[in-house]
Parts: sequence; C-alpha cells; structure tokens
Amino acid sequence: MVNLELIKELARTSPTKIVLIIIDGLGGLPHLETGKTELETANTPNLDRLAAKGICGFVDTVSPGITPGSASGHLAVFGYDPLSFNIGRGVLEAVGIGFDIQQEDVAARSNFCTINKAGLVTDRRAGRISTGKCAELCDLLGKIVIEGVRLFVCPVKEHRFVVVFRGEGLDAAVADSDPQQIGVVPRDVNALHATAQKTANITNQFIAQARTILAKQYPTNMVLLRGFSQKPQFPAIGEIYKLKPAAIAVYPMYRGLARLVGMEILETGATIEEEFVTLKQNYDNYDFFFLHIKGADSAGEDGDFDKKVVVIEETDKALSCLANIEPDVIVVTGDHSSPAVLKGHSWHPVPTLLYSKWCRPDKVNEFSESACIYGGLGRFPATQIMLLAMANALKLTKFGA
Amino acid sequence: MVNLELIKELARTSPTKIVLIIIDGLGGLPHLETGKTELETANTPNLDRLAAKGICGFVDTVSPGITPGSASGHLAVFGYDPLSFNIGRGVLEAVGIGFDIQQEDVAARSNFCTINKAGLVTDRRAGRISTGKCAELCDLLGKIVIEGVRLFVCPVKEHRFVVVFRGEGLDAAVADSDPQQIGVVPRDVNALHATAQKTANITNQFIAQARTILAKQYPTNMVLLRGFSQKPQFPAIGEIYKLKPAAIAVYPMYRGLARLVGMEILETGATIEEEFVTLKQNYDNYDFFFLHIKGADSAGEDGDFDKKVVVIEETDKALSCLANIEPDVIVVTGDHSSPAVLKGHSWHPVPTLLYSKWCRPDKVNEFSESACIYGGLGRFPATQIMLLAMANALKLTKFGA
Repeated sequence: MVNLELIKELARTSPTKIVLIIIDGLGGLPHLETGKTELETANTPNLDRLAAKGICGFVDTVSPGITPGSASGHLAVFGYDPLSFNIGRGVLEAVGIGFDIQQEDVAARSNFCTINKAGLVTDRRAGRISTGKCAELCDLLGKIVIEGVRLFVCPVKEHRFVVVFRGEGLDAAVADSDPQQIGVVPRDVNALHATAQKTANITNQFIAQARTILAKQYPTNMVLLRGFSQKPQFPAIGEIYKLKPAAIAVYPMYRGLARLVGMEILETGATIEEEFVTLKQNYDNYDFFFLHIKGADSAGEDGDFDKKVVVIEETDKALSCLANIEPDVIVVTGDHSSPAVLKGHSWHPVPTLLYSKWCRPDKVNEFSESACIYGGLGRFPATQIMLLAMANALKLTKFGA
Repeated sequence: MVNLELIKELARTSPTKIVLIIIDGLGGLPHLETGKTELETANTPNLDRLAAKGICGFVDTVSPGITPGSASGHLAVFGYDPLSFNIGRGVLEAVGIGFDIQQEDVAARSNFCTINKAGLVTDRRAGRISTGKCAELCDLLGKIVIEGVRLFVCPVKEHRFVVVFRGEGLDAAVADSDPQQIGVVPRDVNALHATAQKTANITNQFIAQARTILAKQYPTNMVLLRGFSQKPQFPAIGEIYKLKPAAIAVYPMYRGLARLVGMEILETGATIEEEFVTLKQNYDNYDFFFLHIKGADSAGEDGDFDKKVVVIEETDKALSCLANIEPDVIVVTGDHSSPAVLKGHSWHPVPTLLYSKWCRPDKVNEFSESACIYGGLGRFPATQIMLLAMANALKLTKFGA
C-alpha cells in the first residue's frame, strides 16, 4: 500500500483542477419489475458522456462485503483508510449537527434517560421524547457552570444530544457513564489514564448537576454519556496532496467531515444546482473541489426508488455547469451503495467514473452498474481514488529512479 | 484488510442460510483438441441457471501465481488467510487420515526408512513399501509403552505414517529427527524451548524402542519423524461469523479441516447425491453448510479430463436438491484449480458464483472460466468469500457511523 507519507513526497502543485463529486449512496440494485437499478433507470446524458470519454469501474470503500457508514465511506474516498483512521462517536455526533469541534474539545454522545427512585436506569432512551423537548432540556443543561471549562449542550434528535467540554488539559480517555443496560445505576465516569482525571472530574460534576436540574423532569430525569472523543489528528488533505481544497455540501455532517480533513467549507444553497453554481463561482480560488449530493442516499434509505432516480437526474442536469469550466479531472463516485430495495446502506461496490484528458478511456459509454463491470478501472479500493485523480491531473511525480 | 475481530463485531445471527459448495480443484484449462475447459465441456444447466441469476467472478486462494495445497485453499475459502493461519505438517497428516486430534496431542509426520549397520540412513523411504506392510509395522510400533503418555501410530500411505503423542504438558517445539539426507545418522530430537524437554525425551524413547522393534525388519529398520505440531488455535468459524456451521464431506482430510475450524461434521454417504441429501435432511438444524466435492480434483490430478467433466455434471445434477429448500445464499467455488492437462493443482484463479436475492446480478449466464472473466465479482481473494456470503445473507451490520 502506498502510504500518505509517500504521497506527500510525490505530490506537486500544478495549475490543474480536480472535481470530486460524491453522490451519497449512489450504487443500487435492480428494480424488481424492470430489472434496472436507479442509476440505470435515470436519464443521464451528461454522466453518460463523461463515462464515454472517461474510464469507469467500481470501488469498495471499506472492503468487499462490508456495508460502510457515511463517515467511513467518505474518509475512504478522501484517501484515508477507514480501518486505520477513526472518528470517535462523540465527535461524529457533534460534527453531524454542524458543531465546529476544536482541538481542545472533548465531545460525548449523550441520551436523556429515566431512572427510578433507587437510581436504577429503567429506560435508556426516556421514552424517545420529541426533538423539541430535547432542545428545551438542553437549554436547561446549558446553564450548568463548571469552573475551568466551557460547556456546550446541543440537541441532536429525540432523546439524543451532544455535550462538548472545552478547556485546557482535557483528555477523552474516560469510560462511558452509560451502562448499556437497564436495572443498574449509571456509572461514574472513570479516567482510563492519569492524564484524563481532570476530564473525569468535570464530567462527573456535569452529570451530578444535570441530575439535580432534571430531578422533576420524569421520564427525562437523568443523562447517560458515552463515546468521549476528541478531534482526530488526521493529516490535512491539502498537505498530503499539496492541494487547496474546498467542500460544497448542504448537510452539516459532510461539511463537518470535510472540515476534519482540512477542507475549506464554501457557503452554498440547498439545491443540487446551487451547489454546482457555488463550484463555478469559486472555481478560480481552489484546485480541488469535493461536491456532495445527499438526496440519493436519503431516497435509498426511504426505499423511494423513483425519488433516487430523480436526484440522479438532477445531478446529471447540474453537471452541465462543468462544461464551461472544463475541470482537468472529474470523478463521480459514492461513499457506499444505498439500494432502494434494501432501504439502507449496502455492501455493493460503487460505480465510479473518472474523466481526464489522460485517462485511457475504455468502451463503457454509459454510467451504470451493468456497464461499470466492463470498465477499465476494474474494481478497486476507494482509498486509491485520490491517487488516480492526482495522477490524471499530472500532480504526482515519478516514484523511484 | 478486515480482520476476524472486526468481522466478529459486525456479524449478527439471522434466520437466513448459507450453502458453500467447494468443488475441489474446480478450475481447469482448455482441452487441447476442443479448446474448452472441463467446466465448459460439462453440461451444467443448474450451475448455469445460478450463474444467470447470481454474480460470478474469480478467486485466488493464496495469491495470484501461487499453487495452493488443499488445506491452504480450504482455509482461505473459510476466511482464514493461509499466509497467517498455519497447520503443522504432523497435524495435517493426522487430520488427513481422519484422526480426531485433541488439544493435548503432538503429532509427527513419520517415515519408515533404511539404515545400514553403521546406523547411517541409506533410503529415507525404505524402498516405498506397500501401504499394507506399513499398517503391519504400525501395529508393531503401537505396542510401545512410554510412561506418562498415550501413543497412536497410524499408517498413511506406502512408507508414510503418523505418530500422535497424547498427554499433559506436551509441547511441539522440538526439531525433526529426519536429517533430510542420506549417509548420516538420524538426529536426536532436540527441544527448541525448555518447555518442550518432556516431549523431546518421550519422542527419543519412542524412536529408540522403534529401532529395537524394527531391527530385523530390513529395509524398514528405522523411523524418521518430522513436522511435530499441535492442533492450531483457530478462532472457530461459528464464533467469528455467529453461525451454526455444518460440514458435509466424504474424505477424512476435509472433514478434519472443517473440524479444525469448528464445524460440526455430518455423517453422509459416498456419492455426491448422498451429500446433497444429507444437506437437505439437516437443513433446519444449521445456518451454514460447507459441502465438499472431492472427485473433480482427483480426476484433474489423474489427468482424466473426461472424468472431471463427469464429476462436475454429477454435482450439477445433485444441485437440483437445493431448488426445494432455496437457501438464501449459495456459493460455488473451489479450493484451487486442478487442470487435467497439468495433472495436478495449479495457480489459476477459481471460477466462483454467488447467488442471493440481493447479489446485484451481472450478465454472465453460464458458469465457466470464459464467462467468469466478465462477472460482476471481478477477481478477488478467496478470504473475502465468507464476507460476501454473510453480507448477501444480511448477516453483517454496518461498519462505522
């Protein structure tokens, strides 16, 4: 495996530009009646033209057979092996709601829960309260004051919220307070290393104060914290590849992931077309663009085959934006498959196309699962996409003498 | 690489069932006259139908270019990388004759050999005596008594036999007595670690007594022992994948291998049809079945092209058994290729088909080497077969968030 250190040595700056389009959950499965996948059903003249001029294939983002989560899938496409580069649960939860996590933060994924008079947990999810109620309770807990640390308590969804502790000398090496079962008391937060004692103390103070504040809020009369984590120390994508990278994404989670790997986040509108317009408007200021299309995955997860087809068609239409600016390299791929018939993420490899002037085209002339089987890229790990994009942009020097 | 620990975390039980059919030595090479391989020559309507509904490709069991032994090939298909998981020669020899090797056993692959009056080895194989003669001599040696240990001396073939020492505190870390050359004396068995001193002493006692017993049995007047080994500590396949696995195999070697990885061994008849009937009869009691077809490899090794065709056709016919029980996932593959024209195992990748409701079918509509080239599975390591089968059985949860 080529490692990131080696890529750093080989990468060079150049005036060429790369556009990486991730259609979330792109890959699909055949419709039970028509035998065609979502991508095969969609009318996609622009993608087909790119496929015809470019080279196609399949990527596995984690491994053949493995169904990736969104963060893992994106990390892989960005060139970070998700089996090695890990983002903690607390940080991911914070990133998912658009919280700008800082180096000195410790984040915990948290639940409101129910305890009985003896203090035993009776419902780890407090009856799945509404998100509105969750927000109210987070406001209450946000008033807690603990010396030496700043607190952020943010609602996520239903009973779930995130707590971020910000301050000097914090260390996420503490164990969960969530006992992961009912009929027992919530655990004290214990330091796993001596360096995390301060964090453990602060967290226990927070939990004690929360308990007092929530005492009369049955069934949401206690909190459980888990997945304590800090911002991961990923080498920045711009440093590895000597790129000036920008991200265009509507959903907070993907803006957050892009920020974690060091991309600059561009403000954009809510539609696919607006995302492409943002790309066009900022085209002169960066040499790498990650553009994220969320709708295909959402439709796939909802089991809405037709909606997924529409999202792919909208993306295809918006692609005509690129015709005027002519990026040197265009990659279209996904972070995983999300077949509507499975109503969720899946393990199926993701159709991928790469267009550049130098890509040695194959005979594939449409972008589809059936056609990609015969593509010149073959089937390869998604962690190699960045390398291929860089090579096709003539941004990688020779290895060895 | 996804490791077994991670798979253990992702695996979940479910009511779905997987049938893995290993046609030993399945892959072939074109007949010199017809240009068709054994699999291409065979009339296989059932396999072709599965290929049409399923997805096809090629596996390499050890690595492209490497010709696997049977044990290595099977381990790979079971998901154990044969470059990491090793079975000692002595244990393999014991397993090959159906000996039920226990945790406290040390097994040695052994030869009858010839020594001259000076004690120097003159023939390491004692003129390749008959297997019948070997059995007689093993009976003699079986009478040896050594305190603190139980002895098993079992004939294998010609001059080859296996000795198993059973007792507390044995350790296989001892060097061979076989000097691997003639004109020298057999070596004393030396402990490689202090913990193996007891085993070395016992082995040397055995050899000394054998020498006395065989003194008048020229040319089989001495023994050579090598490949001392113990039952490997493989994580059980049922634990890794949360499966209840059963093996159906006629030959002792494959029953033994299946037992080593923790499968339950089902009693079965001698024909392919009987193996499939066994599968059907036990279908409700397990959720994973390994069914082994030996004849294809034997025919390939004999250079008997036509016989191999017949075995494949018999397998195809027996496959109709599955039509009634409709397993959720069916995989047909081999442990290696055994082309009749090469009269032995070979390095050629093995045609592989996977059928499930969720497999994203390709355009391959016959099961053959020529067709698998265009299959949607591409070419992949056999160690990923179990992952793919598990994914298609919806028995793997998502990786990462």
